Amino acid sequence: MRAELITIGDEILIGQIVNTNAVFLAKALNKIGIEITKITSISDNKEAIINALESSYPRSKLVVLTGGLGPTKDDITKHTLCAYFNDILVENKEILFHIEEIFKKYVTTPINDQNRKQALLPSKAKILKNEYGTASGMWFEKNDQVIIALPGVPFEMKALVNDSVLPSLKSRYIRPFIYHKTVLTYGLGESAIAERIVEWENNLPKDIKLAYLPSLGRVRLRISGKGDDELLLEKQIDSLIGGLLPLIKDIFVGYEDDSMFEEKIQSEFLSRNLSLAIAESCTGGEIASRLTKIPGASGYFKGGLVVYQTNTKSNILDISETLIEKHSVVSKAVAELMALNVRKKFNSSIGISTTGNAGPSKGDSDAEVGTVWIAIATNERVYSEKFLFGKHRDRIIGKAVNKALELLFKQLI
Amino acid sequence: MRAELITIGDEILIGQIVNTNAVFLAKALNKIGIEITKITSISDNKEAIINALESSYPRSKLVVLTGGLGPTKDDITKHTLCAYFNDILVENKEILFHIEEIFKKYVTTPINDQNRKQALLPSKAKILKNEYGTASGMWFEKNDQVIIALPGVPFEMKALVNDSVLPSLKSRYIRPFIYHKTVLTYGLGESAIAERIVEWENNLPKDIKLAYLPSLGRVRLRISGKGDDELLLEKQIDSLIGGLLPLIKDIFVGYEDDSMFEEKIQSEFLSRNLSLAIAESCTGGEIASRLTKIPGASGYFKGGLVVYQTNTKSNILDISETLIEKHSVVSKAVAELMALNVRKKFNSSIGISTTGNAGPSKGDSDAEVGTVWIAIATNERVYSEKFLFGKHRDRIIGKAVNKALELLFKQLI
Repeated sequence: MRAELITIGDEILIGQIVNTNAVFLAKALNKIGIEITKITSISDNKEAIINALESSYPRSKLVVLTGGLGPTKDDITKHTLCAYFNDILVENKEILFHIEEIFKKYVTTPINDQNRKQALLPSKAKILKNEYGTASGMWFEKNDQVIIALPGVPFEMKALVNDSVLPSLKSRYIRPFIYHKTVLTYGLGESAIAERIVEWENNLPKDIKLAYLPSLGRVRLRISGKGDDELLLEKQIDSLIGGLLPLIKDIFVGYEDDSMFEEKIQSEFLSRNLSLAIAESCTGGEIASRLTKIPGASGYFKGGLVVYQTNTKSNILDISETLIEKHSVVSKAVAELMALNVRKKFNSSIGISTTGNAGPSKGDSDAEVGTVWIAIATNERVYSEKFLFGKHRDRIIGKAVNKALELLFKQLI
Repeated sequence: MRAELITIGDEILIGQIVNTNAVFLAKALNKIGIEITKITSISDNKEAIINALESSYPRSKLVVLTGGLGPTKDDITKHTLCAYFNDILVENKEILFHIEEIFKKYVTTPINDQNRKQALLPSKAKILKNEYGTASGMWFEKNDQVIIALPGVPFEMKALVNDSVLPSLKSRYIRPFIYHKTVLTYGLGESAIAERIVEWENNLPKDIKLAYLPSLGRVRLRISGKGDDELLLEKQIDSLIGGLLPLIKDIFVGYEDDSMFEEKIQSEFLSRNLSLAIAESCTGGEIASRLTKIPGASGYFKGGLVVYQTNTKSNILDISETLIEKHSVVSKAVAELMALNVRKKFNSSIGISTTGNAGPSKGDSDAEVGTVWIAIATNERVYSEKFLFGKHRDRIIGKAVNKALELLFKQLI
């Protein structure tokens, strides 16, 4: 079953925000067997919205729109849908009551007319109540096509999708199964991986797709298929991956998603009853932040130090000024002592540290912009590695965080 | 002048990645007066690519495509463009040499045939050399329409756009000026702001657009216009904003972008010769990480502690176990002592702390999931505030970080 998404809002067309709503919707619909064939972003403009709706028919049985349902003047989706469906707005008593309740309970400013007007809704639509906000969702049907309009505020849209849209779609349509499995690898480029697995790839069945997704030193391999029998499809893909794994075992991290490394690290620490402390300089707290995004991190992560200024390294982490002067603040000696000292200070099984120059200027160090030292200290040894991560501050920090997590992962397995 | 973007890749349609390329391109083209009217994401599929190209004509004089130019089998954009333009692939000697050089200099694995094939390029296209990778950009012209294909790897695409696409577009087209100015506000919802500025908004000239963009407790107001005289346009918008500011002065942060708060905070600290130390519990290092993303943060940011486990708060930050037992780890008393002690420990002018429960389980505290205390200590006083940030871990952390930066900002101004 094919569907398309239309996201409405100038903020996407001028590059002011990232279209995360499309990501969520595509993922959620895919999971219930609905394939997204097209995502279109258009302006808060009546003509553009109507054109996009018209051109979607008869290509797609289902269209999900987001955005433009707010209370302010720039929000025109509701009126445009009325024009498209030749409909009128009527006051919905239940929604009006709901809006008044929201203001009573959660909002410090008093309710105003614009807020109340959010209860004026198209008469032909099935209204989807928005538990967390005042902009209702709407479900229209016309010529065997379903058109669903949702608010653009991500949190409200997501709740509406999970609570009413998905259940309704599930009962409305018979859908096939779509199955993706993604393998995360590190340390090898995409064409080197492709060369290594060429025979395996050539032998993939015609209806199974393989994609390579490179990003900051990691490559994800996604294997996708579609079928009517869920179990059979999963079995087929799992068995294909069974043939892939021996070919990539030295670069394999695990399956699926962005927080893979962080989750793997957490489960290794917890299952082996180890603990961690971090001393970050150039990564500025981002390693700690990434690890603590995972629920349960407090089970192994004792804490960390962000020793950003050079004299903080001396005062807080006992890295002597003499050592810093002798070796420079971005050096093997400083990185290793940081890892040793943070391990000792926090009384943890493992200590990890970063010290580097993220630029744009050289700062307190002689090291070139992009130089980063990462060190790990355990009860048995301390070791470190030097990296050159290019010239761009954001990328240097991002790559250093990824690399530190990689080294930690390698240390554990 | 109107243009559209087409991003190619299943990873967007299944929700595996966020379309950041569209954000960058839209912003970059807008800046030189090119208005994006449509962004379309489609599959790595020949028919879908050709349909998207065909339907863009004659609507848009300029189409920018990204994605599908890599060396692996799933990349089909180059071959599809050959079919669309009735063209053939020929080996480009200069690009072949460039690819070989990249492998010699930067890649640890040897070059293979797939990499060399990246030098086979459409004969009718002007080739845009990719300094940072092996996938070249291509510039086609047909029937007065320009179609530019760029690699999907963000870093490579961006460099190509800055180094060759933008300069060529600038000399190829006469363009109007587009001017956006965005005002960042905090602490008031969008309809309350709309009510407050209703008269000002109603008096806006017809060709000036106002948009409201709410997100995690902040609202951005974007004022946009288009015109042939750059100075006149900027003057007009700046003078309109001059009328807006007095109406929102208590909720105004500054102009433009996401790192606004961080930049403002940094410039306040630097200009007043103050320094900062942070003690983070539930925010896990994210406040430090956000502040250190701004170049020059080492000028005022001494460092921070991530005291994640309860006993780390005692051992590292001298918060006595008795105090924690008496008040609970998520409490006014603990937050304030954390701020005081981190200030003292790092010898900084200001100390800020967070302690809260980001869930999903209650952890070491009696506090409900979503409860966060934030405290600030200066040489004159220590004060704190309690917040309830809902039930969702990511949002709790995100809102706590935003709120901490807000309080710090308020403290400074």
